Amino acid sequence: MEAEEQSEWGPKAWAHLSSVRKQSPLIQCITNFVSMDLTANTLLSAGASPAMLHSSNEIPDFTPQVHALYINVGTLSDNWLPAMKLAAELASKSNKPWVLDPVAAGASSFRLRACLDLISLKPTVIRGNASEIMALANASVGSTKGVDSSHESIDAVEAAKCLANSSGAVVAVSGAVDFVTDGKRLVGARNGVPMMQKITATGCAVTALIAAFVAVDQSHALEATASALAVFGVAGEMGMEMAKGPASLRMHLIDSLYGLDQSAVISRVKITTS
Amino acid sequence: MEAEEQSEWGPKAWAHLSSVRKQSPLIQCITNFVSMDLTANTLLSAGASPAMLHSSNEIPDFTPQVHALYINVGTLSDNWLPAMKLAAELASKSNKPWVLDPVAAGASSFRLRACLDLISLKPTVIRGNASEIMALANASVGSTKGVDSSHESIDAVEAAKCLANSSGAVVAVSGAVDFVTDGKRLVGARNGVPMMQKITATGCAVTALIAAFVAVDQSHALEATASALAVFGVAGEMGMEMAKGPASLRMHLIDSLYGLDQSAVISRVKITTS
Amino acid sequence: MEAEEQSEWGPKAWAHLSSVRKQSPLIQCITNFVSMDLTANTLLSAGASPAMLHSSNEIPDFTPQVHALYINVGTLSDNWLPAMKLAAELASKSNKPWVLDPVAAGASSFRLRACLDLISLKPTVIRGNASEIMALANASVGSTKGVDSSHESIDAVEAAKCLANSSGAVVAVSGAVDFVTDGKRLVGARNGVPMMQKITATGCAVTALIAAFVAVDQSHALEATASALAVFGVAGEMGMEMAKGPASLRMHLIDSLYGLDQSAVISRVKITTS
Repeated sequence: MEAEEQSEWGPKAWAHLSSVRKQSPLIQCITNFVSMDLTANTLLSAGASPAMLHSSNEIPDFTPQVHALYINVGTLSDNWLPAMKLAAELASKSNKPWVLDPVAAGASSFRLRACLDLISLKPTVIRGNASEIMALANASVGSTKGVDSSHESIDAVEAAKCLANSSGAVVAVSGAVDFVTDGKRLVGARNGVPMMQKITATGCAVTALIAAFVAVDQSHALEATASALAVFGVAGEMGMEMAKGPASLRMHLIDSLYGLDQSAVISRVKITTS
Repeated sequence: MEAEEQSEWGPKAWAHLSSVRKQSPLIQCITNFVSMDLTANTLLSAGASPAMLHSSNEIPDFTPQVHALYINVGTLSDNWLPAMKLAAELASKSNKPWVLDPVAAGASSFRLRACLDLISLKPTVIRGNASEIMALANASVGSTKGVDSSHESIDAVEAAKCLANSSGAVVAVSGAVDFVTDGKRLVGARNGVPMMQKITATGCAVTALIAAFVAVDQSHALEATASALAVFGVAGEMGMEMAKGPASLRMHLIDSLYGLDQSAVISRVKITTS
Repeated sequence: MEAEEQSEWGPKAWAHLSSVRKQSPLIQCITNFVSMDLTANTLLSAGASPAMLHSSNEIPDFTPQVHALYINVGTLSDNWLPAMKLAAELASKSNKPWVLDPVAAGASSFRLRACLDLISLKPTVIRGNASEIMALANASVGSTKGVDSSHESIDAVEAAKCLANSSGAVVAVSGAVDFVTDGKRLVGARNGVPMMQKITATGCAVTALIAAFVAVDQSHALEATASALAVFGVAGEMGMEMAKGPASLRMHLIDSLYGLDQSAVISRVKITTS
């Protein structure tokens, strides 16, 4: 059964990555200061074209031309929030996919409110850790420890389904297993290594990668999301074979993502339907 | 004598690092744009949990929950300064340690004023280079070359003692030797390699590490500060054994910090009482 | 002929790099969030002293003291633009060289207007990709794909000459060949490897390096610009010999820039007069 599924998901993930490399989708990123470097390098290594533009003065000109929009609230402030909302609205209006990373959603009421407002603007995908997804599903502050999760991803599966159903978005919960749901279907992506959590912004980077994958397969957001999570995890696994710690893992992960070939993707991707 | 001291300081430094790894303190960082990536990765590699939140809208919710606060004025602007002050006030009020990095304190009168205002909010530790500490102690602009020091750390020892006495903070001066003083006691941490100054934000990163060490031993801020400086220096020395230049040193330093074991810390830490 | 030119340009490039190492010019950088880390590390590795200060509150104190100013509009917003203009004015007034990187100049009318306004403040050098230079020369929006070029550098040579003549700046167009012109003379720098485009902010970083090179040879801005482009390209070529992908290339490039010696520069620099 699992073997069958792998033979389905491996080629699917490879098809997504190949499309990103061929089409080089333009991904607008309105993201936090910490993650900009890794996010841009992740997108470039995967074959996409990142553009970090966040000013309300140019979003009306620029956002309608991108292939997908990525919004991350990591270093949120009240002067960035209106631009995030404007870009999300324009993306939705022009039928472009957009993806939300609700970093530390439960860390403050301001942040929770901001995330819920953004979710009302119809993201295509929401990816967070367990604490973040639970905070959003329950609309409650406090179930988070800063930006790190204090829950396992499995604990947030029901919350993810609720959030998917209420928002209309595909919801992904990262963790030892990454769960992805559209409210009905549930798949688990089981790639990656624990040390990836010791590198800042890997969560942010994989959410940007989801935006690139969804950009080339907008009508299959769940499949594209699972593929992106698995492909990033495979790059982490291959990087880990050469790494001596978190900093060299970061380097080898990006190198591996750039160099991934069909056989590695197909043999390594572990996605299963729950 | 020195051998005796080492046998005291080595285990002390190891105890601090072990506590950070065990307790994984949550460190709020309001820091400059250049250093965010390295700072977050330094904290993660040491076992701490960094959170870069800087908005006044959420500081009242968030800051009282953190284990320590780190403020760095590197890319200061007038719309970040009120948040820095608010967070510092809340940390002081809730008896949480907070650490200041007065980057380029003497570069402008605006920056000097900002640093002095922050110091009036009772930081637990202030860490700067010689030029910065001298600018603060003399409340004078101009003794700095941008963000790099134009003085040796030894030149700033008296200034550091004055600043410690006037502010109530532990003051650390980085340089070939890192001096740490509470106004009475003076210790010198002699680890590290010169090439670390060719990597941007190593000073910022070690100040964040001080925040993590002080978070787990608040009542011994001088000891925690000296330990953090020495441990970071040891990681730099071990990294240097593998490095071919500043960029590979940066990677190996972080990997080494992550992998540091008891024997390396105890045998390599060089802290002496002056 | 080409051999002769190399024997002229190699020593010239080496002289520029040696001067930067000796004089360690202070370079103020008002640049985008994505590139700050790589830009600072590039300048440090070359021997310069970077300082990222962008607040209007301190520019009047600080900018007159720097050796060169670097302005990059990558993550432009309306609250950063006045500081960019103020710093550019002060640099021009105090006869300090300043260099502009007009990232994604054609991405929006706001951005194009901002770049043209900055150009009216008399930059010493403008460096962009072909799409950016064409957008500026034609004062038109739309010939760009985000931050990546949709044209070859050769296509923008005439636009570069026009822009040089109308602005009084030396204009550089990056690409497979980097062209540099002052409106009359045209040189081509032919170093570098294609994978450098898969690393975010390499364009931003080399523009900062141009600022450092021009800082030590202000009266020969064209020569300093060509030297900086070639030297950065040589570091990329040497880095590529050790790289396994974009992330390790980034590391090896910076290490190589730090370690470059006279014979490598002289034997590898490829600059030709067109």
